[in-house]
Amino acid sequence: MAQAAIITVKCQSRPGIIAAFSQAVVECDGDIKDINQFNDRMQDRYFMRMACTVRPEHMSLLSRRLESVAGRLGAYHHLRERQRPVRTLIMTSRFDHCLNDLLYRWRNGELPMMQPVGVVSNHPLSVACSRVHLGDIPFHHLPVTEDGRAEREEALRGIMEESGAELLVLARYMQVFSDRFVRDVEGRCINIHRSFLPGFRGQEPYRQASLRGVKLIGATAHYVTADLDEGPIIEQDIEPITHSDTIEDLVRKGRDIERRVLARAVRYHLDGRVFLNDDRTVVFPD
Amino acid sequence: MAQAAIITVKCQSRPGIIAAFSQAVVECDGDIKDINQFNDRMQDRYFMRMACTVRPEHMSLLSRRLESVAGRLGAYHHLRERQRPVRTLIMTSRFDHCLNDLLYRWRNGELPMMQPVGVVSNHPLSVACSRVHLGDIPFHHLPVTEDGRAEREEALRGIMEESGAELLVLARYMQVFSDRFVRDVEGRCINIHRSFLPGFRGQEPYRQASLRGVKLIGATAHYVTADLDEGPIIEQDIEPITHSDTIEDLVRKGRDIERRVLARAVRYHLDGRVFLNDDRTVVFPD
Amino acid sequence: MAQAAIITVKCQSRPGIIAAFSQAVVECDGDIKDINQFNDRMQDRYFMRMACTVRPEHMSLLSRRLESVAGRLGAYHHLRERQRPVRTLIMTSRFDHCLNDLLYRWRNGELPMMQPVGVVSNHPLSVACSRVHLGDIPFHHLPVTEDGRAEREEALRGIMEESGAELLVLARYMQVFSDRFVRDVEGRCINIHRSFLPGFRGQEPYRQASLRGVKLIGATAHYVTADLDEGPIIEQDIEPITHSDTIEDLVRKGRDIERRVLARAVRYHLDGRVFLNDDRTVVFPD
Amino acid sequence: MAQAAIITVKCQSRPGIIAAFSQAVVECDGDIKDINQFNDRMQDRYFMRMACTVRPEHMSLLSRRLESVAGRLGAYHHLRERQRPVRTLIMTSRFDHCLNDLLYRWRNGELPMMQPVGVVSNHPLSVACSRVHLGDIPFHHLPVTEDGRAEREEALRGIMEESGAELLVLARYMQVFSDRFVRDVEGRCINIHRSFLPGFRGQEPYRQASLRGVKLIGATAHYVTADLDEGPIIEQDIEPITHSDTIEDLVRKGRDIERRVLARAVRYHLDGRVFLNDDRTVVFPD
Repeated sequence: MAQAAIITVKCQSRPGIIAAFSQAVVECDGDIKDINQFNDRMQDRYFMRMACTVRPEHMSLLSRRLESVAGRLGAYHHLRERQRPVRTLIMTSRFDHCLNDLLYRWRNGELPMMQPVGVVSNHPLSVACSRVHLGDIPFHHLPVTEDGRAEREEALRGIMEESGAELLVLARYMQVFSDRFVRDVEGRCINIHRSFLPGFRGQEPYRQASLRGVKLIGATAHYVTADLDEGPIIEQDIEPITHSDTIEDLVRKGRDIERRVLARAVRYHLDGRVFLNDDRTVVFPD
Repeated sequence: MAQAAIITVKCQSRPGIIAAFSQAVVECDGDIKDINQFNDRMQDRYFMRMACTVRPEHMSLLSRRLESVAGRLGAYHHLRERQRPVRTLIMTSRFDHCLNDLLYRWRNGELPMMQPVGVVSNHPLSVACSRVHLGDIPFHHLPVTEDGRAEREEALRGIMEESGAELLVLARYMQVFSDRFVRDVEGRCINIHRSFLPGFRGQEPYRQASLRGVKLIGATAHYVTADLDEGPIIEQDIEPITHSDTIEDLVRKGRDIERRVLARAVRYHLDGRVFLNDDRTVVFPD
Repeated sequence: MAQAAIITVKCQSRPGIIAAFSQAVVECDGDIKDINQFNDRMQDRYFMRMACTVRPEHMSLLSRRLESVAGRLGAYHHLRERQRPVRTLIMTSRFDHCLNDLLYRWRNGELPMMQPVGVVSNHPLSVACSRVHLGDIPFHHLPVTEDGRAEREEALRGIMEESGAELLVLARYMQVFSDRFVRDVEGRCINIHRSFLPGFRGQEPYRQASLRGVKLIGATAHYVTADLDEGPIIEQDIEPITHSDTIEDLVRKGRDIERRVLARAVRYHLDGRVFLNDDRTVVFPD
Repeated sequence: MAQAAIITVKCQSRPGIIAAFSQAVVECDGDIKDINQFNDRMQDRYFMRMACTVRPEHMSLLSRRLESVAGRLGAYHHLRERQRPVRTLIMTSRFDHCLNDLLYRWRNGELPMMQPVGVVSNHPLSVACSRVHLGDIPFHHLPVTEDGRAEREEALRGIMEESGAELLVLARYMQVFSDRFVRDVEGRCINIHRSFLPGFRGQEPYRQASLRGVKLIGATAHYVTADLDEGPIIEQDIEPITHSDTIEDLVRKGRDIERRVLARAVRYHLDGRVFLNDDRTVVFPD
C-alpha cells in the first residue's frame, strides 16, 4: 500500500527545481498526485508543494534523494508523511464557536491532519467550553493575573513541550503574547481576527464597523507576529451587512465568518499549502 | 394611466409615521407598491421610502397631503416622480471602465432614472474617452493647472448650472475638491474608491493591498465629504485574490468590482433608496 | 417592559392594508420596529410582516384590534409573541452536521425562537448523534422496517402531539413521508436538499454534480410537499468547485453549505419571515 | 527579450510527465513561470499546462524537444506562442451586453490573447449592435430563413475560413447549429447559457426560474455540443434573487452574470487553461 507524503520546497528562484524534485520522486517509484509552484519574481524566491505517494519501503530512499537535491539547489525543503497528523494545541477564551467548529470538523474527518493534544483557556472549563464537548482532550486553565504573563507563558511552554504541540491555534484567545514567545512560535501559531484586516485593527472591530457604516464585515486568519494584527494573512472572507444590523447582529454574522475562515486556514496549514514569504504568505488552493 | 412616484421621509423617531403617510396615499386613490423603513434607535431618527402609483390628476393633491402630513409630524420629505429622470454629470480622468459601464447600462435601460447631461474630465476627450462612445452627451475638458483649482471648480459650477446637474458621479475622477465645493454638493456627489474602506485609504490602494498580502480586494462607493475617503459608504463589494496576482492583476480584477459597485450605488441613489445618516447611510435594498 | 410581537398578514391585494394594520398598532400604544410587505401582482395577493412592541397589558387589546381589521379586510393574519418560542422537532438519519449546527446555534442564543422538543432518527442514538451532545433533549428511535411506514408515521404523530411540536425540521433525514402526512404538516416541515434545485433532484446529487462537471454545488432548504424535491424554496446557496474535487470533497464542501442554508431557513421561518405563495415563498430578509 | 509560450499536454496517466517536459524547457534555457497539472484517476488521464519563457532563437529547439518528449510519452501536446493572439469570431443576436463586454475588455487590454476577426448576427447591424462600437471589426449579417440553415452554416464556414477564425464565441446567439457543424467546431465554440445548468435547460430560463421560485439565478459558459445545453461546462456563477424580482429584474441581473461568466470562460480558453475531458472540462485557475 502506497504512503502519502507532502514535499514542500522554498528556495531562491532558479530554473530546474521542479524537474529535479519530480525526478527524485520518479526515481523512488513514487507517483506525483499534485503539484503547485509559485515564483515570486520580486523577492527572487521560489515555493513548491508536491503531493505524492511512495511505497513505504522507498520512503527513506525518497528522503535521502530529496536531501541530496535540496543540497545541490540550496533549497530549504520538508518531507511530511500524511499518516502522521500534526499535534495541535487550541487556545480559547470565552467564545467557543471556533473551538467547537474545529473539534466538530476533526471528529467528522474533515481535518485528518490535525491531532488535538489540548485546549488552553484563561477561563475555567465551565466558562471556556460551556457548549463544547471536549471528550478525552486535556483542558488547561491558565488564569490571567496582573504581571503574570511571564509565568503564564512559561506554563504554556510547559504544556506545549509535554503535549508535543507543533501548532498553536488561537480560536478567539483574547490575550496578547510577549514578543519573545511570538518569535519562538513563528509560522506555527494561527490567530483569527474579527475583521477584514487591515480595516479595523485592534479592539472591538464590530463596533468600529458599525460606527463607520461599512456594508460588509469579515474575518482574517493570520500567523501571529510581534506586530499585533499585522501578521502574514492566510485567509479572509466577508459577508454583507446593512444599516439595520445591530452590533449584536454583526457579532452573530461574524461568528459564521470567523469559524469558516479559521477552519480553512488551519486546513491549509496542515496540508502544507501555506508558506511564509516575509510578512505575506503563499497559499496553494485545495 | 397611473404615474409612479417615490416618497422619501426622514424625521425624528415617533409612532404613526407609516400610518399617516400611507393614509395620505390611500386618500389620493394611490396604490402603495413598496415600502421600506428603518428606525435608528441610537440616533432617534426614522427613515422611510414608499413607492406608489397615483393617477396624474391626483398628483398635486398627493403633494399637498404629504406636505400636510410632514408638517404635522415635523418630517423632512420628498416626492419624486419616476417619469422625471435625474440630471447627472459624470466626471472621469483616464480610466474609462466606470464611465463606459454607466453609459452602457443607461443605453440598455438599466438606469431609467439617470439622464446624463455631460461628461467632465481633466484630460482631453481622446484620452478620457478613448474606448467610450459618448454620442450626444456633451464633453467638457477642465485641465489641471497649478493653483488652478478655484477656477476649475468655478468652471465646474458653471457646467452644473448650465446643464441643470442634480447628481455628480465621480467615475474614477482623480482630482480632489475644495472643502467648500464638497459641502455644496453634499449628498449628491458619489465617488468610487478602489478598496474595501477603511482598508487602504489614500493613494495606490492596489499596491498597498499587494504589499500587505491581503486575500481579497474591494471597492467602495461613497458620498464625497471634506474628509477624504471618509464619506458615508453606499455600497461595497470584494473579490478574492491570491499570492500570484500581480498589481496589474489586481487592477484588472478591481475594474470589475469598481464598475459594479458604482453602478449599484448610482442606481440605489436614483431610486431614492439611499439616505444620509450623519456619516453613515441607510440603503433600502431593491 | 414592552413585549415584542410579530404580526403576519396574507390577503388579496387591495389598498390600505398597511395603513389599517399600522393604525391598529398605534392605537394600542404599540411601537412598529420593522415592516415588510410584498404585493404579488400576478397572483393578486398581498403579504405583510410587522414587528412591534406593545405593553403587556395592551396585548389582548392589540389582538382584538387586529382581529377586527383582518375581518374588515378579509385578511388571514397571525399574531406571534416573541417570548414564546416555537416547539421544534428535529429529524435526522446518520449525518449529524445539520443537527449539530442547529443545536449549537440554539445554545449560543442565535435561534431564540426555537425550542427543541426532541430529536427523531431512523437510526439509534449512537449512530444518529455520535458527534452531537443532546443534553436534555429527548431522543426517539423510529427504525425503518419493511412496510412499516404507516406505523412509523403514526409513532411520529404521537411524538409530535406529546411534545407539542409546531415545526418539523428534516436535518438530513433520508426517509420519504406519505402524501397524507406531508399534507398534514404543510408549511411547517422544512427539509434541506443537497443541491441547488431544480438541478440534481433525487438521489446522490453530489455524484450527479461530479458526473455533469458543474463548477458550483449548492443546497436548498424548502417546505416539504408530496411532490419530492419540488416544495416551495426558502433559501439556497452555493460554493464553487473544481475539476479536481472528488465526490468526497463535494460532500465535505456541501456540509458547510447545507448547515448554513438550513440554519437560515429555520431562522427565517421562526421569525415569521416566510410565507407560502402557492408553490413558491415570500421571504422577507433580516 | 524572452518570448512567452504556453505548453499544454494531455495523455494517459503515468509517472514522469512533469519531469520530462520541464526537463525539455530547462534544456532550452527556458524559464518555467507557472505549472498546473491534474491527474484524473477515474479516466486514467493526465492534463498539464506549463507557462514559460524562452529566448526567440530557442523556440524551434523547444518545439522539437517537446515533440520528442511527447512522442516518447504518447502524449498529445500543443505549444502556443503568447505573442500570436487567437483569431476569434463573435456571434450575437439582439442582446449585445456580452458582445459589448468582450470588446470593451479587449480594447482595455484584458484579453490580449483575443483577436476579434468579425461579428456575425442573424439580425442586421443596426439591431445586433445598436449600443456597440465595432470600429474596424467586420460585421456579417446571416439572416434566418425557413429551411435556410444549411446555407447559413455554409456562409458561416466561409466567413470562418476567410477570417481564419480559430475560436467561435456565441455571445447570446439564439440560433441552433446542425450536429455536423457542431462536431466540426468541437472544443472551439463557446456558448453562454442563461442558467446554472443543469437547472432550467432550454427556452426562457428566467421565466422558469421565476415560476419555480428559486432564490438564485446563474449563467453557464460551455463548449457547444450536439446535445443542446449539455456541453462541457467551463464556468458558472450565480447571484441571489428574491420573491420581489420580476422577470425583467432577473433579465437585468442575469446580464451581469452572463457577461462576466462568458468573459472568464473566453479568457481561460485563450490562456490554454481549459481542457476537454469527455463531457466535462479541466480548468486551471489564473
